[in-house]
Amino acid sequence: MTRWPLPEPMRMALEAAASAADAGEVPIGAVIVKDGVVIAAAHNSPREDHDPTAHAEVMAIRAAAAKLGQERLTGCDLWVTLEPCAMCAGAIVHARLARVYYAASDPKGGAVEHGAKVFDAPGCLHRPEVYSGIGESEAADMLRDFFKARR
Amino acid sequence: MTRWPLPEPMRMALEAAASAADAGEVPIGAVIVKDGVVIAAAHNSPREDHDPTAHAEVMAIRAAAAKLGQERLTGCDLWVTLEPCAMCAGAIVHARLARVYYAASDPKGGAVEHGAKVFDAPGCLHRPEVYSGIGESEAADMLRDFFKARR
Repeated sequence: MTRWPLPEPMRMALEAAASAADAGEVPIGAVIVKDGVVIAAAHNSPREDHDPTAHAEVMAIRAAAAKLGQERLTGCDLWVTLEPCAMCAGAIVHARLARVYYAASDPKGGAVEHGAKVFDAPGCLHRPEVYSGIGESEAADMLRDFFKARR
Repeated sequence: MTRWPLPEPMRMALEAAASAADAGEVPIGAVIVKDGVVIAAAHNSPREDHDPTAHAEVMAIRAAAAKLGQERLTGCDLWVTLEPCAMCAGAIVHARLARVYYAASDPKGGAVEHGAKVFDAPGCLHRPEVYSGIGESEAADMLRDFFKARR
């Protein structure tokens, strides 16, 4: 059997997630793409950075905006290994990201299809296109292995 | 008539908001207090910093966590001049802030008593105590003047 290959940005987000695990952080990775080119990649790093806002998505958004020297990431895409939480979904709104691709769903902390459902909330100022499930098993396995090893 | 004085942290948050306006940023300020001592103050700075996540609350949380050298702000209080958005409410959850005091409500972008109502969403991992309306007119007047001058 030939398994359909993952899109390159999701492969890179999974690599970033793996490096988070190596650093003792919950393995979540994110990548931002503009016009087909990866302009930022980051992993979850709240412990390392002493920063509760240092989720992979926030770190990637901050890096991409700094690189472009602008406040917004209009027309850019975010690839992330786990469903964004409320903080990250809010950051995606403020950044005006065009598309969000995420791998695994997160029934506990996710706020796209779960919980606060930020993009569907009344008055949400910007709704990106959202695609889920790309690299789902790879991302979920990495999280499962990480938490199993720590128990 | 004697107007009841504002609590010191809210007075400082309003000062931070005023300095945001001076820098051409939407005037919102935030302060973090631990054991009665202000450990961080910040203002909204997404334009200046080229960072869509640079809301006053996020900047104050990052500064406070860096100062304490820890991932969480357990037992700390946040004072902010405007109702937090979904991103900032999510950051408050991750930081485990004990109490949130905000001045003006934000029916358009707020996510505490409006929109995504992050703290009330199913599965929310931490709910701070929330107090609103302290310094409401001062904060709202500052925002109104800012937007009026830009029109």
